[in-house]
Amino acid sequence: MREELESLTVNKENLVRRIKVAAHNEPADLVIKNGKVIDVFSGQLLETDVAIADGMIVGLGDYEADEILDAQGRYICPALIDAHVHIESSLLTPGAFSDVLAARGVTAAITDPHEIANVLGADGIRFMLERAKESSIDLYVMLPSSVPATSFEHNGATLEASDLEPLFNHAQVLVLAEVMDFPAVLNAEPEMVDKLTMTLKHSWRIDGHAAGLDARGVNIYKAAGIRTDHECVSIDEAKDRLARGMYVMIRQGTVAKDLPQLISLVNETNSRRFLFCTDDKYPDDLISEGSVDHNVRMAIKSGLDPITCIKMASLNPAECYGFREKGAVAPGYEANFLLLDDLEQFSISKVYAHGKLIAENGQSVHHHTHSAIKPQAHPLKWPALAEDALAVPLGPSHQAHVIGIIPNSLVTRDLVEQVPEQKGHFVHSPSRDYVKMAVIERHKGLGTLGTGIVKGFGMKSGAIATTIAHDSHNLVVAGCSDSDMIAAAEHLKVIDGGMVVVKDGKVLAELALPIAGLMTDSPASEAASALKELNEAAVSLGVSDSFNPFLTLSFLSLPVIPDLKLTDTGLFDVRAFKHISVSID
Amino acid sequence: MREELESLTVNKENLVRRIKVAAHNEPADLVIKNGKVIDVFSGQLLETDVAIADGMIVGLGDYEADEILDAQGRYICPALIDAHVHIESSLLTPGAFSDVLAARGVTAAITDPHEIANVLGADGIRFMLERAKESSIDLYVMLPSSVPATSFEHNGATLEASDLEPLFNHAQVLVLAEVMDFPAVLNAEPEMVDKLTMTLKHSWRIDGHAAGLDARGVNIYKAAGIRTDHECVSIDEAKDRLARGMYVMIRQGTVAKDLPQLISLVNETNSRRFLFCTDDKYPDDLISEGSVDHNVRMAIKSGLDPITCIKMASLNPAECYGFREKGAVAPGYEANFLLLDDLEQFSISKVYAHGKLIAENGQSVHHHTHSAIKPQAHPLKWPALAEDALAVPLGPSHQAHVIGIIPNSLVTRDLVEQVPEQKGHFVHSPSRDYVKMAVIERHKGLGTLGTGIVKGFGMKSGAIATTIAHDSHNLVVAGCSDSDMIAAAEHLKVIDGGMVVVKDGKVLAELALPIAGLMTDSPASEAASALKELNEAAVSLGVSDSFNPFLTLSFLSLPVIPDLKLTDTGLFDVRAFKHISVSID
Repeated sequence: MREELESLTVNKENLVRRIKVAAHNEPADLVIKNGKVIDVFSGQLLETDVAIADGMIVGLGDYEADEILDAQGRYICPALIDAHVHIESSLLTPGAFSDVLAARGVTAAITDPHEIANVLGADGIRFMLERAKESSIDLYVMLPSSVPATSFEHNGATLEASDLEPLFNHAQVLVLAEVMDFPAVLNAEPEMVDKLTMTLKHSWRIDGHAAGLDARGVNIYKAAGIRTDHECVSIDEAKDRLARGMYVMIRQGTVAKDLPQLISLVNETNSRRFLFCTDDKYPDDLISEGSVDHNVRMAIKSGLDPITCIKMASLNPAECYGFREKGAVAPGYEANFLLLDDLEQFSISKVYAHGKLIAENGQSVHHHTHSAIKPQAHPLKWPALAEDALAVPLGPSHQAHVIGIIPNSLVTRDLVEQVPEQKGHFVHSPSRDYVKMAVIERHKGLGTLGTGIVKGFGMKSGAIATTIAHDSHNLVVAGCSDSDMIAAAEHLKVIDGGMVVVKDGKVLAELALPIAGLMTDSPASEAASALKELNEAAVSLGVSDSFNPFLTLSFLSLPVIPDLKLTDTGLFDVRAFKHISVSID
Repeated sequence: MREELESLTVNKENLVRRIKVAAHNEPADLVIKNGKVIDVFSGQLLETDVAIADGMIVGLGDYEADEILDAQGRYICPALIDAHVHIESSLLTPGAFSDVLAARGVTAAITDPHEIANVLGADGIRFMLERAKESSIDLYVMLPSSVPATSFEHNGATLEASDLEPLFNHAQVLVLAEVMDFPAVLNAEPEMVDKLTMTLKHSWRIDGHAAGLDARGVNIYKAAGIRTDHECVSIDEAKDRLARGMYVMIRQGTVAKDLPQLISLVNETNSRRFLFCTDDKYPDDLISEGSVDHNVRMAIKSGLDPITCIKMASLNPAECYGFREKGAVAPGYEANFLLLDDLEQFSISKVYAHGKLIAENGQSVHHHTHSAIKPQAHPLKWPALAEDALAVPLGPSHQAHVIGIIPNSLVTRDLVEQVPEQKGHFVHSPSRDYVKMAVIERHKGLGTLGTGIVKGFGMKSGAIATTIAHDSHNLVVAGCSDSDMIAAAEHLKVIDGGMVVVKDGKVLAELALPIAGLMTDSPASEAASALKELNEAAVSLGVSDSFNPFLTLSFLSLPVIPDLKLTDTGLFDVRAFKHISVSID
């Protein structure tokens, strides 16, 4: 990826060359012949050559070049842009992540390093920025607006406006990332106002996470300068946002799959206001389904005009984010394009970025598996755990607030149930679907630790643990015995974070994520394999296979989504917005 | 007009207030009730209140305010934006010009001070910038890219990249104005490359004047970063531009009236790439027809969906020029809106800019007729004219190259005809439709003067003269006697420039344009009246009333439009691109 796109574009020598090539006074670097250009401006197909010089398209017409690319009747399509994605959710570092996206025709992404920022702060963002430069696609890095997400648990870092402002100097930084703290905006809290004002003053953009906001909430967000949302799940929500000038991102990821509900709202008149994004996508889904190419494919299948679908992942996000030279196959635009074998299937044959082939037949040309840029060491830290560190005391009734899993949902139930008891404490029983859960602070060794009870995993033995635990990314472990839970946690300490399945003290499966406890430098295929093994190992413990246990576990600690969650500071009743005891009495 | 729009938007106190009002925690300044919002995002009407605070729309929904505006069922429409206009062509200074536009619902315009720059250089641009700040609407001032327009005649100033660069510091300056010198771009001439590179480096935009350019020419322009055109006159030209990502401005002005030919190309899919502009419009036309509201009205009459038409003068130009807070009636957008009595007729009842009423019932609330900002004095200068200064010698055949007027066109014919002769020189004869024409350099007193013969005015006596003469704005005079022609020129010297009709040494009608010889500080109605008198006086001389003689005269000196033109350096054959003698032999 080019570090300074702007100066590449405006270098005098480049400009002169582009003019000469456009004028047929010099041969182009590359000319695509025998293709059908997908014209996102007219919505039609054009049979014309495409001339490229210095990574820029300089002409549509008859051209000659040193190198001819014979499209053999294929479609020449603008390359795609993912309007909102968290690289960390792929478990991959930016280089490997870009290889996966390149293979899927995505040559730019607006990424939010919210997860690593919660662990490593501004240093984490800088790490992502540096790694992004090595990638073969254009990775833009937004500045997370809500770190920490809450004040009553412990994450790894705090980012205030003054921490963010210097980061805006990077060419790849353009946006204040998903403002999710609605109360902070509503109450015009000084820190939030500082962040918003700072961003607007520099003429940068502000993205929103407007989950569940009604029309009044959208008014407030728009009045505050927040202009996109990727969280709406219904037609009515989308209409509220559309009417108020908020770009609607139609999201299709691993957990959140909003496209089927929303796509019917899109038409020729309003489509310019819709963008496609993935938000969070696991590496196995990225490999099997794709990135936003999958959104495009699904939308085409739903019956929407193919070029309209393509625009939602090309011209529209380019316009939304002010990329005047992206999003179209036309002169004056970067030579980021795909050759498609089939428009209805959106089947991709070749992918070019800045005039260079970066993928063909579903494989990236590059393999970014090695980098000299090292992450900051962030070993897992906690004081030695006593034998009874994970004890969950119960009162006389043996009744407890139990976190009730809803499969494939981020929402949980607050169940009040009588649970198995021994010597005044919760104990696992193989015939009852309750396991113990713990969240152990791991960033600063504070010693804080929350314990609780979860229903719905189906686990009969062993323990599973992960250091991906939204949003504070402490260590979350669920299991049937304290010893297996502690063994799982200690093993993650040894491998500097990741995901693990333990039974009878033995590791059945693991995936090391030593980069902030969130990412691996392995390629996507290896990460996907490891995930498969982890899931199989979890199933062998009795865990239900109707949902992804690690994903579920990583959201049981997210205290901004109701009803009942667990953090390092204890059990949290989200609706009442306060900590409560596990035990009823 | 706000000098620093960006900082107004991002002031902390303003942001907090906007949030509070949006949240119903404070009353709005103004709430519009009982109206139908024209939603440019969905293309539909919304029945909802509109809440405004500090000049910004902060909410759509039920709101209360100190002041209620009862729309009584009217439409609440985004205010309009003229995407490309030369204020000088209205003959009015920015204040009076803004009054006229305000009355027509236009609250922003992208203006190109090309004319005054050709007379007063950078000082002329600064004058327009200062005067623009006094206006009640948002006047953006572009930097003219082609001053002078040619190298072989004499204008008042030269503007190089280094002259333009400091001007980009003004908040109202965003764009390098219509690049019209295609050969300079084609040949990558250093001065032009400097201007383009400078503009792109600062992330500003570049407009184009791509008259007559074929697809190759459009490729060259787009490759050079030039991204709009307001000169296309046919569907095929528009298609070439559209496909190459060039915004197409559909122009309807006093001379150029391209809308009828182009409007049928616009549809729901491509309309986002079309903008409306006026380019050049005389004050009488502005008063009787309007500004871009006239384009909107004509487009609606042609059968295009009204909201699609409105978008071409609101959301689309806002997007094209990066005005994220203009172009819609929605929270987060400036409170620039119209109340319309009727959508099909586009009849405007009230006009608001930044939340303040600036016009109602076709009248501006303000009357910008006085300004403390004075223009630079630029008296008309030439060495004393000898009696025979305007003589046109003829050869034995009495045949001459004669400029043939084509009514209502900027194009002329190169006629070779036998003309009336006396003592070896051209002489006017009442029964023959030839008059003498002269272009007298007036900026620096160089003493250069071109003479020629024109056919088609119909003039039988007297003379008409003007100091508006594209693009060098020297003095242009046409008449039946040298004495009346000299009298006309000398009278314009006395009044510091303008337009005049003279017969037998007496002034029949005049309009003083003492600001650079191009503009008056009078209000529009006075300028329109004076124009009417001038035209009637010209008709009394025998001039045909089938075209505007002063407009025609002002373009007879424009040497970039074929076939035959006259400049202060003599008669110019545009196709051969060289000076020629009037006389054939």
